[in-house]
Amino acid sequence: MSQILHEFPSLTSELEQVRELILANISNSGTFIREALEDIILARGKMLRPAFLILTARTGKFPGDKIYEIAAALEMLHIATLVHDDIIDDADTRRGVATLHKRLGTRKAVLIGDFLFSRSSVLAARYTSTDNGKSLSNAVSLICESEIDQSSRCFSLDFSKRNYFRRIAGKTAALFLLAFHAGASESRMDKKQVMWARRAGYSIGMAFQIIDDILDCTGERNKLGKPAGNDIRHGIYTLPVIIAWQKSESNGELHRLLADHPYSEGTAAKILLLLDQCGALEESRKIADRYTHRALEAISRLPKGAGREQLSALARKLLFRSY
Amino acid sequence: MSQILHEFPSLTSELEQVRELILANISNSGTFIREALEDIILARGKMLRPAFLILTARTGKFPGDKIYEIAAALEMLHIATLVHDDIIDDADTRRGVATLHKRLGTRKAVLIGDFLFSRSSVLAARYTSTDNGKSLSNAVSLICESEIDQSSRCFSLDFSKRNYFRRIAGKTAALFLLAFHAGASESRMDKKQVMWARRAGYSIGMAFQIIDDILDCTGERNKLGKPAGNDIRHGIYTLPVIIAWQKSESNGELHRLLADHPYSEGTAAKILLLLDQCGALEESRKIADRYTHRALEAISRLPKGAGREQLSALARKLLFRSY
Repeated sequence: MSQILHEFPSLTSELEQVRELILANISNSGTFIREALEDIILARGKMLRPAFLILTARTGKFPGDKIYEIAAALEMLHIATLVHDDIIDDADTRRGVATLHKRLGTRKAVLIGDFLFSRSSVLAARYTSTDNGKSLSNAVSLICESEIDQSSRCFSLDFSKRNYFRRIAGKTAALFLLAFHAGASESRMDKKQVMWARRAGYSIGMAFQIIDDILDCTGERNKLGKPAGNDIRHGIYTLPVIIAWQKSESNGELHRLLADHPYSEGTAAKILLLLDQCGALEESRKIADRYTHRALEAISRLPKGAGREQLSALARKLLFRSY
Repeated sequence: MSQILHEFPSLTSELEQVRELILANISNSGTFIREALEDIILARGKMLRPAFLILTARTGKFPGDKIYEIAAALEMLHIATLVHDDIIDDADTRRGVATLHKRLGTRKAVLIGDFLFSRSSVLAARYTSTDNGKSLSNAVSLICESEIDQSSRCFSLDFSKRNYFRRIAGKTAALFLLAFHAGASESRMDKKQVMWARRAGYSIGMAFQIIDDILDCTGERNKLGKPAGNDIRHGIYTLPVIIAWQKSESNGELHRLLADHPYSEGTAAKILLLLDQCGALEESRKIADRYTHRALEAISRLPKGAGREQLSALARKLLFRSY
């Protein structure tokens, strides 16, 4: 997936600039923080949120260099959440590299995440409106609340689609929404266009997360260094499980399997098979597609031009992955 | 020590208002966060930073209710650092109450800290100038850097007074400085007065931390539920150790003791005794006193009036504790 942006050569130098800004922003900190983070920043290739922000800004009246500072703030915030997520999930690796908390211990990883949050806020306060700054902090609140909610519900069978959608809206869609919102408002789109941009970001984030959750069930996320069924094993029940649950209420097979945690390899494999067989994966794909189409529709309401074309192309590229 | 503010009855209702604002700010969050934090917010009595902020603001032209919102932001930030500190120190209790990460696990404590940071930023963005908002985020960066530095140097004998002062300036004085700065700038003091206010806050923070570090060596912090020599046992060498080290270079006794970690009860007791005997505690007290006097001097340069009297009284109360 890190290849996605390579097909957008016009973004390469801009994202490079964003990466430089992030490095510059941590370069005044102690050697320790710098060394710990340089790896991550240089290694981590995706930068989807900065890419969407920049493309959205290009769709309006491009505001110049400050957009790269805002992109850096957004990406630092995203990296901060990843560093803390890895502590929360007690993950060993991320994209094949040992996670910060495994390399340096939980203590330092907590602090390095905090440090990134604070640098991100400083950048946001400096380069964007107070409203956008507030939105950034509000997004962090929402991400935390959603993660806490997820963490509190581990292995709980009291789940619902509604709760799932609210959770992924907070933990994933909020930041995509913010990227589009900031891109649109900084490039002086009118109120209605900003609204469409927000809707595009939100829908992309929702589709992106649902697809990610499906890939976890099919083992496609394997490529990213996680085994199939990782979420299920941790008691995190995502859309396919919830849909299958609703279908299987009659036969009770899934009920029996889910109740039997911690899951053996055999049980996990059976659950995954069941999700496919009962059509829950297929239904989940349809829901993701609906969000994707909503996103493309919203993008089509933005000002016409090369920026919009690219925005639409990136969204398609990201969301029409094979899954 | 939580008694200190009881002697300032005029502050009671204002601090109550700050507490209410904090509760209101977390009340929209999920039940889980609210319940986890309510205890802490209701239990934790000190609120020193809000108290100093409010008194400083009273010394100038009191800006009205928004000062309570800023005080809430400052206190939420402080609580966030405590929640994360407890994870970092793996502390069991704080003020006799089980720490959040012991009650709820590290994962949730990380997220709850993040959540508080973000709520604090939102409040700051809403109620204070962009500059003060940036200062708040910058203070978080500084706190993190100082804590990481401290954490990196555990048990390292390569210490210096200079490094110690820089570290406590970051981890403690920065937030006191900010309380005074915000109080002064929001109450429209002139540039010079704001500078004196900052100096007062900085010096109070420095004295406060040095005293705390001395109390850790004398066992006075015992009352707060920590055993004497807690820092030393964790390999955190504070001012008394650094001063004793410089004195003992000739005899080498301290060198031998410090090299022998993890410390047995006997070794820890010997180190503590040595700090007293060689006069290092006494010298540390003198240095704390110097900061205290600098703080009182700076406060005396602020606009005359009841506010200033109270500010000075609170500083004395806090810094002339028996130690």
